[in-house]
Amino acid sequence: MKVSRLGEFGLIDLLNKMIKDAKLNTASSDLILGIGDDTAAWKGRGQVQLATVDTMVQGIHFTLETTTWEELGWKSLAINISDIASMGGIPRYALVALALPYDAETGNITGLYKGMIEIARKYKVAIAGGNISRAPQVSITVTVLGSSPDSKILKRSAAKVGDTVAITGYAGSAAAGMEILEKGLKFHTKTTRHLKNAFLHPVPRVEEGRLLVRHGITTAIDTSDGLLADLRHICEASGVGAKVITDLIPINNMVKTGFKEKALELALGGGEDYELLFTGDARKIAGLKEDIKCPVTVIGDIIKSEPGKIELVDADGKPVKTRRTGWKHF
Amino acid sequence: MKVSRLGEFGLIDLLNKMIKDAKLNTASSDLILGIGDDTAAWKGRGQVQLATVDTMVQGIHFTLETTTWEELGWKSLAINISDIASMGGIPRYALVALALPYDAETGNITGLYKGMIEIARKYKVAIAGGNISRAPQVSITVTVLGSSPDSKILKRSAAKVGDTVAITGYAGSAAAGMEILEKGLKFHTKTTRHLKNAFLHPVPRVEEGRLLVRHGITTAIDTSDGLLADLRHICEASGVGAKVITDLIPINNMVKTGFKEKALELALGGGEDYELLFTGDARKIAGLKEDIKCPVTVIGDIIKSEPGKIELVDADGKPVKTRRTGWKHF
Repeated sequence: MKVSRLGEFGLIDLLNKMIKDAKLNTASSDLILGIGDDTAAWKGRGQVQLATVDTMVQGIHFTLETTTWEELGWKSLAINISDIASMGGIPRYALVALALPYDAETGNITGLYKGMIEIARKYKVAIAGGNISRAPQVSITVTVLGSSPDSKILKRSAAKVGDTVAITGYAGSAAAGMEILEKGLKFHTKTTRHLKNAFLHPVPRVEEGRLLVRHGITTAIDTSDGLLADLRHICEASGVGAKVITDLIPINNMVKTGFKEKALELALGGGEDYELLFTGDARKIAGLKEDIKCPVTVIGDIIKSEPGKIELVDADGKPVKTRRTGWKHF
Repeated sequence: MKVSRLGEFGLIDLLNKMIKDAKLNTASSDLILGIGDDTAAWKGRGQVQLATVDTMVQGIHFTLETTTWEELGWKSLAINISDIASMGGIPRYALVALALPYDAETGNITGLYKGMIEIARKYKVAIAGGNISRAPQVSITVTVLGSSPDSKILKRSAAKVGDTVAITGYAGSAAAGMEILEKGLKFHTKTTRHLKNAFLHPVPRVEEGRLLVRHGITTAIDTSDGLLADLRHICEASGVGAKVITDLIPINNMVKTGFKEKALELALGGGEDYELLFTGDARKIAGLKEDIKCPVTVIGDIIKSEPGKIELVDADGKPVKTRRTGWKHF
């Protein structure tokens, strides 16, 4: 059935019922008012509050030719939960502002919510409100509110000269997945599935962000724009430079095998991995590595330099050149 | 200069500078991190937290033929501040998610921010974060976070049989302004300016919302969808009906004079007035009227009825029919 036939309030009722049935919001004892009033309302607990917003626009950030509605729902919430994770916070509430064309199919929109509910359940996030409006193409803007239970947060601006630079997981997998989708590349089924998933179904590092805080790390960012661009964000905000040994960058073997010499470029320039890129004392990072479940790899150092300048060298100390420097909208 | 020439990060820097220069964010001693990190962060104070989001899409909610960029900036924040006001809360922080076409003019976007900064300053709201992405048309999604200092809130669901129904200000002025803009109607200059302003430059009732709370009112909504539709929202959420005496509805004389017999229809069905529509004990409302600066008009009663059913009668008790029942997106 078309959304236009169901009507705005009919669609809202349907989506509210999905959220109610998923019992997402009753899981939060602090939530006072979820969907259905002018604002969401919850009991504050005197902790540091975090808020982030991100938009996905059809034709710019996704195409329905290669993404299912459920994947889209998952990702639209995942990229915001990742921002909370990169602050060392815990995601709590989400507001979903949906813009839909007049002829949108109701079944697609419930699919979108199915994906959102799946990740919301995994991370115990209440979908507490939102807004539906009309637009020529689908656009999903999600706001996620979170908090830091110990009031400690991971900032971009706390990197110091002498810090070690490290990253969770692998770099470039999502960019490889995007290439596979965009160019219709063929690899082994397992490789294709894994890399597509890295792009379509990112898993935010919430638990890992909390572990960083507990191990005394104070600087982090999530790799949404790409390793190089995001490290530059840290360096600019902290007034420092960095030296990265490209041979140390953790690249999944599937990406190395499938993309050969292009793999490093994907790892440096490709965004949307949603890993945590962070800096800190080498001993603290060593301690963290013993405690954390995912791979953590040291890739370089924070150095005194022109703020935001990144030196890329190989294992022998020779300069490495790269073309892609991260996602830009304009 | 085109935004595409300035670049995404160039535009972000420019807008951040505007916000910094306006000293909006330094006015909030609770704000820990404004723009420039993965999330905004502020010190919670253990109060009830409020969050709302709303989107304005070019071609659906506004046309640049009749709206200036500054008006657009004002309104995009105003409609969200109004949601906080309708809960009896105080707006604190805003996140702005902007989607812009590739060929957007930088001067227009700074105009948009000028309007946002103007209203943010008036209501002491910090613009604490946001996101810029590309889209085929302009779309502005604003999230506003607020709090209730005494943890009391105005809900849609608290109306009781026997409550009196009242409204602040006038109904139908914004709809009249929209008609003037859309159809190019000509009235006296003063009338035209006033009604256009009601539509383009709404003034949220924040102080009035707080006064409602202080006078013991517990039910309110802001008239964004239209008096009739919004009263229906209250009645549905509260499981009650309402009887409205249409002759009591406060309609600005300019609307009465300019639109004659159509004036009532605009007042009942036209949205975007952003007045507070509320219910409560008649004596409490009488007490409020002595304390509040804006007009407050009693227009009817909450009655036992099919939930959401609104009876319209004239001063003689005769039924009144209406065609428009409020704004719908689909």
